[in-house]
Amino acid sequence: MPETVEYSIFRGSESGAIITETVKHTIQPNEALVEISHAGLCGADKLSKTKNIPLGHHGAGIVREIGCAVQHVNIGDRVGFNGLQNPCGDCDYCIGGKEQYCTQRDHFEKVGSFATHAVWQASMLIKLPEGLESKYAAPLMCGGAIMWEVLTTNDVRPGDRIGIHGIGGLGHVAILMSSALGCDVVVFSNSQSKRHDAMAIGAKEFHVTNDNVPETPVAPVQHLFWCRDGPPDISNGTIYVLAVGLETVSVPMHFVVKNGIRIQGCSSASRKTIRKMLRFVRLHEIKPWIMTWPMTADGIQDAFKALSESKMRYRGVLVGECGLA
Amino acid sequence: MPETVEYSIFRGSESGAIITETVKHTIQPNEALVEISHAGLCGADKLSKTKNIPLGHHGAGIVREIGCAVQHVNIGDRVGFNGLQNPCGDCDYCIGGKEQYCTQRDHFEKVGSFATHAVWQASMLIKLPEGLESKYAAPLMCGGAIMWEVLTTNDVRPGDRIGIHGIGGLGHVAILMSSALGCDVVVFSNSQSKRHDAMAIGAKEFHVTNDNVPETPVAPVQHLFWCRDGPPDISNGTIYVLAVGLETVSVPMHFVVKNGIRIQGCSSASRKTIRKMLRFVRLHEIKPWIMTWPMTADGIQDAFKALSESKMRYRGVLVGECGLA
Repeated sequence: MPETVEYSIFRGSESGAIITETVKHTIQPNEALVEISHAGLCGADKLSKTKNIPLGHHGAGIVREIGCAVQHVNIGDRVGFNGLQNPCGDCDYCIGGKEQYCTQRDHFEKVGSFATHAVWQASMLIKLPEGLESKYAAPLMCGGAIMWEVLTTNDVRPGDRIGIHGIGGLGHVAILMSSALGCDVVVFSNSQSKRHDAMAIGAKEFHVTNDNVPETPVAPVQHLFWCRDGPPDISNGTIYVLAVGLETVSVPMHFVVKNGIRIQGCSSASRKTIRKMLRFVRLHEIKPWIMTWPMTADGIQDAFKALSESKMRYRGVLVGECGLA
Repeated sequence: MPETVEYSIFRGSESGAIITETVKHTIQPNEALVEISHAGLCGADKLSKTKNIPLGHHGAGIVREIGCAVQHVNIGDRVGFNGLQNPCGDCDYCIGGKEQYCTQRDHFEKVGSFATHAVWQASMLIKLPEGLESKYAAPLMCGGAIMWEVLTTNDVRPGDRIGIHGIGGLGHVAILMSSALGCDVVVFSNSQSKRHDAMAIGAKEFHVTNDNVPETPVAPVQHLFWCRDGPPDISNGTIYVLAVGLETVSVPMHFVVKNGIRIQGCSSASRKTIRKMLRFVRLHEIKPWIMTWPMTADGIQDAFKALSESKMRYRGVLVGECGLA
């Protein structure tokens, strides 16, 4: 007999107010109910805040119920999740292990991670390695996963000179990971204020930019990771565009063609990537820098405020009741 | 209420006789019962014939029953299958879309494709494209899948000069596919007898070998596909070892190191690979050359006989009752 569960989620609204709502859901054979302990707040969530949709898309929690056909997670397991709750399992992306790019994304916006609970297709839940705290794992499920995907599925090699433009939730993880992977990390930022932090977590050079252009000449980098809003600077070898607004960007295609520039976008990571990433951060004891708020309408509002005022150092985490224990 | 089904399978035995056996199975939530219309016979099956295990590992059929959680196949669907019936779904291979390399292979030998029916985890069944006959799709589920995997996931490019050593069930598909992919196909065989066939299906050169060494000098190939029993000749660029006995092979490692030789083994393909392969063969109207026998103990014995006497041209297919319609 399928169980019907009830829990609270937080939605955006046109006014920007955070709305609390009760959801009822009947657990399907392959689904699991997760009590959310921690949810990360990232730039992409700003797009949802003024819409009438559930907020949050990644985090960590504890499995509380499972459907009759679930085999790989058990009640009580500590798990992470990211993005798509309910991939179709049948498109070319899904059967190729890239469920995050599932072509049937209609379920995407039905459940959020800013909530007391969420229901996921159990196969999409990633068990967290022992010793990796949920408050760190949760924000890594998004930015950490994307950075790992980009760093390990392209041509980035140890010893490569790489540039990271923008130090926020994504950029600071990029510095942590790429330096742990043996790269020479060059950071670009529009102000001096984050120099100390950048060097503390692995950067070897720090350059202040004006309107994205360095104030003094900088030796070229092989790979440039664009981890900030706004149009990417494309004067480098390969540009990995990871965080970007919704605006259209003018690309001087003649320059791109003549110089053999490659522009590579990335917004998601596969389950396999996420699992490998979690093992890596556990092994190398990589910890994102986080600021926490309670998982309440007020807490969410305050976290969004810190984000929009550029006061986040560097990733906001909403903490649910079971995350306080 | 889970349904229990009953059907017949064919087993090997120490004496080499084919044993008919009745199997009872209770269909689990994510499983599907397939009535087998066609099963391919390949060299690997010879290893099972003198063991007390179910015979056959790939084929095609029609879905007759599905478990309560199955979503992507329906009763009446025409499907293909290969190798692993019941991958764990949780190891790094499974979540990476490479279920065939699942580390939990304990279910591998419980069900065979030389049978009236078989039960599979439904996610492992590949729907066959309309217009591709099951008698051709069935043998391609193994040799076709492996060839496609090797041809498309390594550095093989259109225009490359490639060598195919051995023309059997695997080798003749290698010629068909690689010529359709725009490669220059050079075939090596230990006798002249298959020259005409090889040239008819896409080879551009045909060389007779003595003890695997060409009788006359041949320009080097970039990739050599080893599609016959026996130790591979490693004097080429990259050697893809696809069919090989159980013996250990002596590799002159000094030669390998000095010449930058790469030896690449391959025995399985992912579901995504198989699906793409089926689309390709449908589009290019590639048809393996087959000989058929009825799916009976006698039929199986006769097919094995043709295989062991090197009379197979080029792939044996066992045809079940629903394949005769």
